[in-house]
Amino acid sequence: MSLTGHKKPRAPARLSARDAVKAALAPYKSDLDKTEEALRGYYQSDVAYVPLISGHLIGGGGKRLRPLLVIVSSHLCGYRGEAHIDLSVVVEFIHAATLLHDDVVDSSNLRRGSVSANIKYGNQASVLTGDFLFAQAFTIMSRAADIGVVRLVSEVTRTLAEGELLQLGSTWDLATTEERYLDTIYRKTAALIAACCRIGARLGGATAEREAALGEFGAKIGFAFQLMDDLLDYSAKDAGWGKPLGADLAEGKVTLPVILALRQADTADRAVIEHAFAQGTERVALAEALEVINRRGALEATRAMAQKFVAEAKAALDVFEPSAPREALRALADFVIEREA
Amino acid sequence: MSLTGHKKPRAPARLSARDAVKAALAPYKSDLDKTEEALRGYYQSDVAYVPLISGHLIGGGGKRLRPLLVIVSSHLCGYRGEAHIDLSVVVEFIHAATLLHDDVVDSSNLRRGSVSANIKYGNQASVLTGDFLFAQAFTIMSRAADIGVVRLVSEVTRTLAEGELLQLGSTWDLATTEERYLDTIYRKTAALIAACCRIGARLGGATAEREAALGEFGAKIGFAFQLMDDLLDYSAKDAGWGKPLGADLAEGKVTLPVILALRQADTADRAVIEHAFAQGTERVALAEALEVINRRGALEATRAMAQKFVAEAKAALDVFEPSAPREALRALADFVIEREA
Repeated sequence: MSLTGHKKPRAPARLSARDAVKAALAPYKSDLDKTEEALRGYYQSDVAYVPLISGHLIGGGGKRLRPLLVIVSSHLCGYRGEAHIDLSVVVEFIHAATLLHDDVVDSSNLRRGSVSANIKYGNQASVLTGDFLFAQAFTIMSRAADIGVVRLVSEVTRTLAEGELLQLGSTWDLATTEERYLDTIYRKTAALIAACCRIGARLGGATAEREAALGEFGAKIGFAFQLMDDLLDYSAKDAGWGKPLGADLAEGKVTLPVILALRQADTADRAVIEHAFAQGTERVALAEALEVINRRGALEATRAMAQKFVAEAKAALDVFEPSAPREALRALADFVIEREA
Repeated sequence: MSLTGHKKPRAPARLSARDAVKAALAPYKSDLDKTEEALRGYYQSDVAYVPLISGHLIGGGGKRLRPLLVIVSSHLCGYRGEAHIDLSVVVEFIHAATLLHDDVVDSSNLRRGSVSANIKYGNQASVLTGDFLFAQAFTIMSRAADIGVVRLVSEVTRTLAEGELLQLGSTWDLATTEERYLDTIYRKTAALIAACCRIGARLGGATAEREAALGEFGAKIGFAFQLMDDLLDYSAKDAGWGKPLGADLAEGKVTLPVILALRQADTADRAVIEHAFAQGTERVALAEALEVINRRGALEATRAMAQKFVAEAKAALDVFEPSAPREALRALADFVIEREA
């Protein structure tokens, strides 16, 4: 108040989720700057493809959700060292490696709104640069962390590969159940996000109970994050999304909006969705399928499930006393379901 | 002598390299059986693709050179524990993962004489199963080894990816030098084989000097192994080779036989090789190129270089007293240059 000169306190205008998360993360800006510098340093190599492709993907930006979670979780648990910077690079490299491999697997041509590395540099170089980033992540880890963190990250990397393989096995399979879908997104998305939070806890020497709470927080925002991703695939309005609407459907990926719509669908609706899958990217068929998915409330239901996960994630943090890092994690959780891209 | 009843010593019949290595490796048969069982156990997963593709590639056999080197090196350095079995699985998994990714990168359709996994199960599932095997290797290692071994293996895995990328960058480039070729095969082959021997040394608590000697032994048989591989590509007579003659040339891989032939070639010879590269798999062009490579002595020179590496490898073992495991490593080295497939 003294700064503004106003005499009477006023209710603050409600911040947008984006502004709120920005404010809550401000104390970690200098850490994140160090991470950005370390990311660039660690993808250097005398083999030209490595900095070229890594720079295209990682240097091109991204939300840095996983590094942020390592950093903020470590502060929440009282960590005062510097290893959180290297470990935030580790999780971003593992994430980037899976993106490179996924784009080859999906034959994608867009990533983060730009042409994807597999299109620009070829599938071969993308696969091998992904391998480099995996190996570099483990190299950094073997210098900066103890064997327990290596075990945690290697197990989660194995889980990621299983998740991608499960998704591959469900492609074009309209009989995919909600249970299988949730198992798949746990493995391909939520498990790594949970691990980021647990790494922070380990660095800070947290109790097993607190590490488990942070793991639960991470897993639940991971579920919410993927649900929103799958929802935005059918509903994004923001140009920052960078993929055509309905891309998942065109690639045969059966995600929750489709699963829930099919559960409510009558014979005619089901035929519309089946027709759209059979047609792939054909515009009219896609538009008709989107209409069914909307009308059957599948998008609202998907969003509601994401909101429930975020509420549970925030509740998991109740084992911690109120603090700036706890507020930052809560703001990140809210941002996950309010983002438009 | 007492066993046979003969009074006078006779010169033993010279064993073939295959029989000699078999005899020298007999003491390690039970360890290798344990490795085979552990390999199968560690590629199980509830995700069906993983055991299917891993079983196709790993269950289908192979020379198990890398596991053998871990096992015999550990015995040479006096190791008496059981971790060498798990670590022999680690190096075979890393090797198998690179094979899966290489076959995708090369669009190969044959591996070890069978249809390759990428053809049978698709590029996508091959890439992701490779990722699983990498991650599983690090998971096993994080349970069985100390952080120093993790560092050694993660660095060598990074080197492998760099070697494959270097090779990719040299594809179709007839100006590739011998120096660049040797750098590439060090990274893509020799470095991992050296690491296998050093892992054995670490397990046995060897001195730094002995670990370095085993590393030198491994690197040099690794060079010899790749040189023979590249030679056999142009000269294999054994059906066990399992690839068509000149496959490397057809894929645009510029290996030592071509580099040495081009160095000796006159304008007409050079034109024949360039024509063969331009024609890919066309039979007449390929036969003409093989004739030039042969006539210019490039195959003999490649074999001579491999023999020199093997002689140096064996000499590196002189820091060790004579023993059964030292003889086994020497026999393995000889086998590398006498194998026909």
